[in-house]
Amino acid sequence: MHDDALQELIHLFSKLPGIGPKSASRLVLFLLKNKEKLMYPLSRSLLASGKSLKKCKVCGNIGVKFPDKICNDPKRDKSIICVVEDISDLWALEKTGSFKGLYHVLGGSLSALDNINPDDLMIKELIQRAKNNNIKEIILALNSTVNSQTTLHYITEKLNGSNVKITKIAQGMPFGAELNYVDEGTLTTAMKARKPI
Amino acid sequence: MHDDALQELIHLFSKLPGIGPKSASRLVLFLLKNKEKLMYPLSRSLLASGKSLKKCKVCGNIGVKFPDKICNDPKRDKSIICVVEDISDLWALEKTGSFKGLYHVLGGSLSALDNINPDDLMIKELIQRAKNNNIKEIILALNSTVNSQTTLHYITEKLNGSNVKITKIAQGMPFGAELNYVDEGTLTTAMKARKPI
Repeated sequence: MHDDALQELIHLFSKLPGIGPKSASRLVLFLLKNKEKLMYPLSRSLLASGKSLKKCKVCGNIGVKFPDKICNDPKRDKSIICVVEDISDLWALEKTGSFKGLYHVLGGSLSALDNINPDDLMIKELIQRAKNNNIKEIILALNSTVNSQTTLHYITEKLNGSNVKITKIAQGMPFGAELNYVDEGTLTTAMKARKPI
Repeated sequence: MHDDALQELIHLFSKLPGIGPKSASRLVLFLLKNKEKLMYPLSRSLLASGKSLKKCKVCGNIGVKFPDKICNDPKRDKSIICVVEDISDLWALEKTGSFKGLYHVLGGSLSALDNINPDDLMIKELIQRAKNNNIKEIILALNSTVNSQTTLHYITEKLNGSNVKITKIAQGMPFGAELNYVDEGTLTTAMKARKPI
């Protein structure tokens, strides 16, 4: 029914996460209506970004230069490493501006189901970095899922014995949340972790 | 925070319909993880499709050849034209295999709010096609929205006086629907348009 070129483009779009064949068709039609403004720039940008952006071998972040922008920034505190699962987590933290140290992007979390082992993540590299005497603290800023917590315990165990202080980000009530809308797990954790005012 | 190349790519993706900055970041990260399999092929396909795919000046469909594949198909009934709003509607009808005539893609529907006038749609071209003596029937397969119905009335008026039979697709109960789940408008139309068994 479709021309081959069209079919291939729709097929490629439908491989992206969260995009089915129907949305893919819609995106392609939209692009064909905006060739100069969007379709060609997107094609160029995909090629250029693919060539220039690479994973930093030190911290796992992606960037143009290596060691990457953050690793290289003289203003950042090089004694603290914040461990995150994904680059999007790094971006989320950077947006808050609440952290001025270095990062370490694991590239996911351990999962028996999806067959993701310690070797698939940048855990070895983290252990290596922790050996550096300059490092004073490692903050584990992982998600609150089961897999992430497994990863947290695995890393904590591996780092055991080093002189580095290991912390994890606090669990509790989300900012602006109402008690009766928060799930039981969060409420239980918040109650247990209560602090004197 | 991001490198420029990264930022531009995310920005371009977030211009697509239904994709916000968050989904755009997610898509870009996914692409960066699948450079050879997805990112470069997508870049190539966007460029190639952009160059090769054009709107057919006769029927408004997009394709590589002109007149396009459907217009040119000797097996299709050239005496019936089915008028649709968008190429995705044409695709939906082609999927059913229930229509073997020609198409005419308007490219949208009339809208005072969005400032879409008859000249913005392929209505003039349709009137022109209707003048051909070979054409016996024009089926209006438009959506059931207010704008589409306005378009339907406008086209019907314009075609008035030609020898062509003008029909519209039936409204009524959707296939497999239950009476108590169908909206009132549909039910009223279905009741009014009842047929002897």
